[in-house]
Amino acid sequence: MPQLYIGNKNYSSWSMRPWVLLRQAGIAFDEVKVRFDSFDAGSQFKSAMGAVTPTGKVPVLVDDGLAIWDTLAIAEYIAEQHPEKHLWPQDRAARARARSIVAEMHSGFTALRSACPMNIEARLPEVGALIWRDNAGVRADVQRLVDMWGALLQEHGGPMLFGPFTIADAFYAPVCMRLATYGLPVPPQIAAYVERVQQLPGVRAWIDDALAERDFLDFEEPYRLAAQKG
Amino acid sequence: MPQLYIGNKNYSSWSMRPWVLLRQAGIAFDEVKVRFDSFDAGSQFKSAMGAVTPTGKVPVLVDDGLAIWDTLAIAEYIAEQHPEKHLWPQDRAARARARSIVAEMHSGFTALRSACPMNIEARLPEVGALIWRDNAGVRADVQRLVDMWGALLQEHGGPMLFGPFTIADAFYAPVCMRLATYGLPVPPQIAAYVERVQQLPGVRAWIDDALAERDFLDFEEPYRLAAQKG
Repeated sequence: MPQLYIGNKNYSSWSMRPWVLLRQAGIAFDEVKVRFDSFDAGSQFKSAMGAVTPTGKVPVLVDDGLAIWDTLAIAEYIAEQHPEKHLWPQDRAARARARSIVAEMHSGFTALRSACPMNIEARLPEVGALIWRDNAGVRADVQRLVDMWGALLQEHGGPMLFGPFTIADAFYAPVCMRLATYGLPVPPQIAAYVERVQQLPGVRAWIDDALAERDFLDFEEPYRLAAQKG
Repeated sequence: MPQLYIGNKNYSSWSMRPWVLLRQAGIAFDEVKVRFDSFDAGSQFKSAMGAVTPTGKVPVLVDDGLAIWDTLAIAEYIAEQHPEKHLWPQDRAARARARSIVAEMHSGFTALRSACPMNIEARLPEVGALIWRDNAGVRADVQRLVDMWGALLQEHGGPMLFGPFTIADAFYAPVCMRLATYGLPVPPQIAAYVERVQQLPGVRAWIDDALAERDFLDFEEPYRLAAQKG
């Protein structure tokens, strides 16, 4: 059975993508969680992951001794291994569009990713309101999401970006978590998509695990000194 | 025939990847060059590219009215449309490895990309020597390249990373140009690969066009006030 190496579920947005993809698609895998301690060369995390791949980062999929790193390569590999799951859209043009927006996520949205790190257990709408007021890059990133998702939901009729669940939804799931945590304003049809993503069983399972984690890491917390009391 | 929108050949490393891929694979396309002026919202470049894709960036492949953006999505699309060209390695494990290192390039090597922007016509070994002395991130990025390329060339026997030319070589071609421009030190077997990449007909054609361009853009030139005299 393939093994998926991941980091903390509350924080690791890159880990979330392939985990949600596998879980939501019903593909069995063993989870290997490597806790974030620090990303220094001598850290436990770097020692553990350095033994798995040359990049020393999560996520990594190990299938029968073959290590595949980086979310995009993992997604393509899973799609190739499970053609019956239709993890990319079946239509050629829709598939090209899905790969375009997935690659766009992979190298873009830097303002949103930098200012609003994923933090599933946190509720930070006041922080989000200040970011929204002051950070034009975040506003531009969210506008791009609104335009992209709005157009795709209209074109394919929902409930997911390309109709049924695909890799594209898995790639944007962490973004949905950020919008929720920071309370960033989006139109109702976009908020409804964000809600539907959070209700996918594969995403729900990740959220539940993240909430159960209770592992507060200072270096992932630019906006909190401690976890809120439940 | 598909159209490939690109930026300046001397500077646009992201444009170089799919152009080299298509040319080296012998796939016919029309080149549409959109000169870099600035990347401000009102610039000619942004107006022109904004009409083609929502991201307003190059490269973009337009095939029969379908716009595909981002190098990775373009590469996957071309590989899918031309299975007979074997643009990914045919072996499943080698293909997964190729996608891993291509994705690693797509989101990584930030120190090298930032300190050593592509500038094909320039020869900047003195600048490179200072960067090498002072920038540990660049040294780490180059070490990663040396390890990656060294292992792959040994495993597959060359001349390219996975034996014959694949998408992986197209993705690392701009890095080869940077190593050459800045004279960054690499072992002989790595230098020989860098040289072989530059001699590929598809890469050679891009270099020739870049050298003929003679379009000096201040905002792409952190290290020069003017082009050297030929």
